[in-house]
Formats: sequence, structure tokens, C-alpha cells
Amino acid sequence: MKYISLFVLLFSLSIVQAQQTDSVFIKSLFNSALTEGKAYEDLRSLCKDVGARLSGSAEADMAIKWGMNKLMSYDFDTVYLQEIEIPHWERGSKEAAWVETSKGEIIKLDILALGGSVPTQGLVHHELVYFKDLEALKAAKKKEVEGKIVFINQAMDATQITTFNAYGMCWPMRGLGAIEAAKKGAHAVVIRSLGLPQDDHPHTGSMVYNEDVEKIPAAALSTNSANLLAERIQEEKLTLSLQLNCRTLPNRKSYNVIAELWGSEKKNEIITFGGHLDSWDVGEGAHDDGAGIVHSMEALRLLKAANYTPKHTLRCVFFMNEENGNMGGKTYADWTLERGDVQIAAIESDRGGFAPRGFSCAGTAEHVTWLKTLAPLLKPYELHKFEKGYGGVDINPLKDNYPSIALFGFVPDSQRYFDFHHTADDVFENVHKRELELGCASMAALIYLIDQQF
Amino acid sequence: MKYISLFVLLFSLSIVQAQQTDSVFIKSLFNSALTEGKAYEDLRSLCKDVGARLSGSAEADMAIKWGMNKLMSYDFDTVYLQEIEIPHWERGSKEAAWVETSKGEIIKLDILALGGSVPTQGLVHHELVYFKDLEALKAAKKKEVEGKIVFINQAMDATQITTFNAYGMCWPMRGLGAIEAAKKGAHAVVIRSLGLPQDDHPHTGSMVYNEDVEKIPAAALSTNSANLLAERIQEEKLTLSLQLNCRTLPNRKSYNVIAELWGSEKKNEIITFGGHLDSWDVGEGAHDDGAGIVHSMEALRLLKAANYTPKHTLRCVFFMNEENGNMGGKTYADWTLERGDVQIAAIESDRGGFAPRGFSCAGTAEHVTWLKTLAPLLKPYELHKFEKGYGGVDINPLKDNYPSIALFGFVPDSQRYFDFHHTADDVFENVHKRELELGCASMAALIYLIDQQF
Repeated sequence: MKYISLFVLLFSLSIVQAQQTDSVFIKSLFNSALTEGKAYEDLRSLCKDVGARLSGSAEADMAIKWGMNKLMSYDFDTVYLQEIEIPHWERGSKEAAWVETSKGEIIKLDILALGGSVPTQGLVHHELVYFKDLEALKAAKKKEVEGKIVFINQAMDATQITTFNAYGMCWPMRGLGAIEAAKKGAHAVVIRSLGLPQDDHPHTGSMVYNEDVEKIPAAALSTNSANLLAERIQEEKLTLSLQLNCRTLPNRKSYNVIAELWGSEKKNEIITFGGHLDSWDVGEGAHDDGAGIVHSMEALRLLKAANYTPKHTLRCVFFMNEENGNMGGKTYADWTLERGDVQIAAIESDRGGFAPRGFSCAGTAEHVTWLKTLAPLLKPYELHKFEKGYGGVDINPLKDNYPSIALFGFVPDSQRYFDFHHTADDVFENVHKRELELGCASMAALIYLIDQQF
Repeated sequence: MKYISLFVLLFSLSIVQAQQTDSVFIKSLFNSALTEGKAYEDLRSLCKDVGARLSGSAEADMAIKWGMNKLMSYDFDTVYLQEIEIPHWERGSKEAAWVETSKGEIIKLDILALGGSVPTQGLVHHELVYFKDLEALKAAKKKEVEGKIVFINQAMDATQITTFNAYGMCWPMRGLGAIEAAKKGAHAVVIRSLGLPQDDHPHTGSMVYNEDVEKIPAAALSTNSANLLAERIQEEKLTLSLQLNCRTLPNRKSYNVIAELWGSEKKNEIITFGGHLDSWDVGEGAHDDGAGIVHSMEALRLLKAANYTPKHTLRCVFFMNEENGNMGGKTYADWTLERGDVQIAAIESDRGGFAPRGFSCAGTAEHVTWLKTLAPLLKPYELHKFEKGYGGVDINPLKDNYPSIALFGFVPDSQRYFDFHHTADDVFENVHKRELELGCASMAALIYLIDQQF
């Protein structure tokens, strides 16, 4: 008994000591991020020196070179490109939309084509038909819809505390609205933007077609424009005039950008972490996902600056084409398997650059349980959400190739995210320096803890 | 045993049921705040229709009338004024400051007199002497300081995760700098603003004099101006030219503004909650403390709108003169004791209108323990800090008169607070609608839980 007690005591002491070591190291990561961080300036550079960077655009190519140069400047063990093939859609010249009332009054609308939409054939004019949500459209008779332009006005649910839940509830309207409208003979579909504030910024985003259904143009109205239409259409018949100039070009070659710090013990075992380098073509992709790019790059830089020797290989990936195809994430998952990497964990930051709240985990029950054990270590930094949940679009394909991988998503405060998401307002000025820095250190802390404890 | 088990079972069921009732009611408060809330429009009105409202100013009188009208519009059981006597300091015309280098170059500085400062005697010119912090000034020899203007450049510590801690560490520089400088024969003192960003906004705030030490003028430089001075003074002798036009006028009569919903069971037992109606004279007092005013008013409105019948009397107080004297809080504490009220708890919101993080408690160990039991109920709203801590300046004097009272402070996210605090940038546009609304519902939830369980 005596020896067992001594063993238990020594074992307990060693756990306490390890936690103290972790605690001191994590504090040093936060201190460094907050006083000597590069993240804010790096994000400024990505937003201002490159700007919006939709997959396939010249600016996306520029962003790849920016990423290479920036990662090389930090002197990691290796920096390289991984080739992928991506779709190439472009908006063309700015969209136009207005309604004409029965009195001949003209009301201009704020509108953006959804990503992937087909164009209108020049300027078209059709009667507008209103639906409060996608379900109402599905329930409508064909004769109510045929020959008209469908307007779906589902508002994000303000009572959802986590705004991503409200976004998820509205996603089918954006993603599938064109299919459902076309099934009933509509000429086009316009939707209420997936945004919470009442303002003039339309929110673009991805949508899909069904090869068996006619492809019709699809666009998003600002919430103010949607409110105005919803009010006026109760009173009178409205004709919508619409011109979308977008087009889909042949697929292009592109790249994920990758940097590594090599593992000292298990070089073949990889901890992947990243964000996506592409953005929509409006704004500057500051929160979506410039923040995720600098969170990931700065996390690796902080660990290197702390002279940390990782056991596993730490691989920072700037994924290309998350917004409209996810070819970066899909190709990466296959490529890493083919080359014989063992992927033990992956972390994605793609929910903005706001103050950290915690991490979500898509993994086994043991992974979720382990994540929850981090709460005391990260409490001083006001992280408190450690829950089962989604990892991220880019890392999700890894799950198919590595069934036992642990996927983690960085969870910042979500209240402001859908003010900016996919709009012209997603610019550097709307990212807060300290909040961004706290996210970088949080990412670095999780990478460190996985490396130590997996 | 059988009967005891049944009793235990029924008792446990009743606790579960009570928590379910609480949970449903709290959800309804949040839903209402987020979809039918008045807080954002009320804050807009306070900021734009009234604006800055320093104690003793005409605008502060206007704010009292605004508060009466607004509270009366919500049809509470009573709305009334409580008379207080307040100090009256005013800035006068805008301050001016610049340095002249040895080459005759003129560099204009962004400066604001500290609240309560004496004026300069017109435009004065003196050599500047630099100290990195208040301790360095205290350690200096009199001959180094005599006849000069003291510049103290202590920066807020960016590594403090809770920014209020960094503020507290710098407060003595602002509060006591004039006394320490005057003891050593300085003509005036200028300090680095208590703000975290590097920008051009000086932060004003309170300071004190010692009746035994000469009163010298005191002002705050923007962080950019402070950085510039700190750099240039390493290179050469600098002369500071300074003009402050402030003055202290005779005390004035003013008021706290009070609204109540009367208790159905214990009308004499009061739950006090509020923020402060006064602000500094720059900006619009949006976060400090317009947010606290509308948090408190909206909390009472939400409870009334939910047809809630309180057991204790719920008393919402708009305190006057928190910023430079706390006569509202001090007078209220004495007044409520004299009229025979029993004060069971008080809640203050005076840390801005940002996303809720939780509540701090200045009370007995039992009060802190009780607060922690609320974590599961408030977790769905992302509140997670339930800790021993400060209540608030306005409610703190209640402690002297009611030693067993539980004081609570509303704790929002603090990362952005010292971007705006006491500056021209503390305006309505820098408050986020949903974050403000979540704060209102959090306040309402705590008031409800105290009323139910105390």
C-alpha cells in the first residue's frame, strides 16, 4: 500500500507539474501575441495589398504568391504549394436591379449575384412573386410561379444566440432556391441576404444547381431592399428588372499554400491547421477568412518564436476555393493520404476574427472529452466553449480518409459575424486588433496541447 | 424509508421543475429583447437627442428630463427624482498643446484636460521632463522636476486579458499624478491616455488633489501624441506649450432618476439596479454609461412586458455624477436607509454594451456560491464568468449601510472598452445592437433570479 500511495502521489504531482508547465507556456504565447504579434499587420497586408480574392481570379493568384512570400519570411522548415484544380466563376460588371410600381415609380435595389449563378440574358423584366421562405415556395402551385421572378424573404432568426445556427437555418433558401424556383417555371430567384442587421449590404455566397432542372439566375437583396419589397408587394403588383452579368469559365489550376515545422519525434504524424485563402469578390475577405489565415500563420510563428520543438509535424495550410467548391480541402485530404501522412488532428479557423469563446470538436467521444479537459487551462483567456461540433469546411474531407482524426473548429464570438459575411463591408477596419491576437494565441495553445498530449 | 424516499423524490422533482420554469422564462426574456427590444433605439435617443452629459452641465439636466420621460413612457408603478448635490466642473474652450523642438519645429498634440483639473494661467511654456510611470516620478529628485511640466508615459499592459485590470494598474498615474508632480515643484502634469489602441483620441477621466499640496493643471495626451513625445524627448530638450481653460463652479442641485415595479410580497425589500446617467463631456457616453442606462431600463421593461409580478420591489436607478464625485451613489445609499428600505441586492452595469460574459459579485461567500449556481441556466446565452469581484461605483456605497447586501456587476466582453472609454469616440455607432440586447436580457434574467431565490 505504501508504495502504491507513493506512486499515486508521484503520478499526481507529475500531472500537476505538466499542467503548470502548460499553463506557463500558454501564458507566454498570449503575451507574445498581444505585445509582439504580427497578425494585425499581416491581415492589413492581405486585405489592402491583395484584397478580395475569389478562386480563379487574378487576385487569388496574387494571394498565393503573397502567402508563399509571407510564410517564407518566417523561416519555417518548409513552404510549398500543393496543386489543385478549381472552378472559375466571375461576377462581370456590377449587377442592376429595380422594381417599377403601378404608378411608374422606380425603386433601385441593392443586389449581388450569388456565386455560381448563370447570367440573365441582358436586362429582363418579370412580375415578382413573394414567398416568406423556401417551404412556402415548395408548397406553391406551378401556375403561381411560372413566368415570374421568385422573391424569398426568410430572415435569419434573431433569437438564435449562436448566429451560425440562424445562418444554417437560412442556408437552404440561398443554396437551393434556384432549383425550387426553376422547378415551378420561374425565370429567376432573388433572396433576402443571410445577414442579421437591417442595412444596404447584400450578402453573396454559394448556391447549387441540379443538372436535371433548368439553371436560372439567382441573386441576394440587401435586408433593407428585401424589407422594402416585402412591404410594397403587399400593396401592389411589382415588376422586377434584373441584369446579372456573371459567367462560369473553364476550370483553372490553383494551389493550396503550405508551411511546416517538422516533428522531432513523429515527423510522419501531422497536425493540420488552417483557414482559407480565397474569399468572395466583394470586400476584402477580412473576417472570412483573412482572420483564419493569420490565426494559423501566427500560431505557427508564435510556436517557432517560443523555440518550441514539436513532436509531430505542424502543418499550416492556406486552403484555396473553400467558398465555391472546396477543391482545396478535398484535394488536400486525398493528397495527404496518398503521400502516406498520418493525420492525427486538424484545426480550422473560419468563423471570423472576434474574441475567442472556445473550440468545437468533430471527433470521437474521447476527443470531445479531452477537449473539455482544457477548460481550466484556457479559462484565463476567457475561452469557455468546449463542445462537440463542427470542425470546418476545409478540414472536413480529412474525416473520410482518416476516420479516427480529431477535427477542431476555432469558435470566436459570433454576434457580429453576419454583419460582414460575404459583403463589401468585410474589410480590415472591421477586425479588432486584440481580438484577432487572442484568436492567434488560442490556436497556438490548442496546437501545442494536441502536440503534447496526442 | 419509503416516505423519506418519496419526499426526496418530490423535492428533487420540484427543484428540476423550478429550474425548467426559470429556463423557459429566461429564454422568453432573451427572445423578447432580441426581436422586440427597445434598448437600441433608446440608446440612440440618449446619445443623439441628448449627447454628452457631464454632471452640472445643461445637457445633464436635459438627460434627467429624458430619463423621466422615457421611464414614464413605459408605465412602471412609479417614476420619480431623488435630489442630490453635485460638483460642477467644466472644460471651457478646447485645450491646446504643442511642443517646440530645438530646431524650432512645432508639433501639435492631442490633449484633454482631466476632469477636475485647475486651468493653466493662459498659455504657459515649460520644459518637459519624462517619467516612464508614477513610481519613477515618486523616485525622482526635486531638482529634476522643479519648474518643469511632468510627462508620465505608463502604457496599459496589453497582456492583461481583462482590460479593466490594465486600467486599474494605470489609474494612479491619472488620479494621483498631479499631486506627486506638484510635491516636486512641477508646473503641470500630462499623462499618457488610459487606452489600449495607438490612436489620436485622448481619454479624459477623474483625478484628485490633496488640499496640502499645490493644485497644478493635469491633462491626458492621446497614445499617438504620447509615443511621439516619448521618442523625441530621448533626442532633445522639449518645451511644452499648454493652455487649459477649465474651471470648477459652485456645487449644483441635481437628481437620480428612479423607476419601480412594486413587490407583491415584500414591497419594502428592494432590488436596486442601474447605471449612471452622467458621462464625460466628449463623445456621447454611449458605452459609458448609456449602455448601463438602457440595460437597466430595458431589463425592467422586459420583466413588465412579460407580465412578471415581482415579489420584491424592483428599483431601476439612473445615478447622476458617477464620473466625478459619485454623489448619486453616495446620496442614494443614505436616502434609501433613512426611508427604511431593506436593500437585499444591487446590480450595476457600467462596463459597456458589449457581448455578455457574466456577472461579478461583491457579497458574502454564500452570495458568490449562489451566483455560481446560475452558470447552467445562463450558459445558453454564452455567459460563463460568475466570480467574486466588484459590483460598481454607484452601488458600492450601499455596502456600508447594508453589510449583508449582495452587489453584482454586469460583465461584458472587455476587449474593446478602452478603445472608447472617456473619448470623443464613445458614440452610439460603436455599440452593437445584438450585443446591447443580450446585455439587457442578461440583466433582466439576474433580477428575476434574485427576486425568485433571495
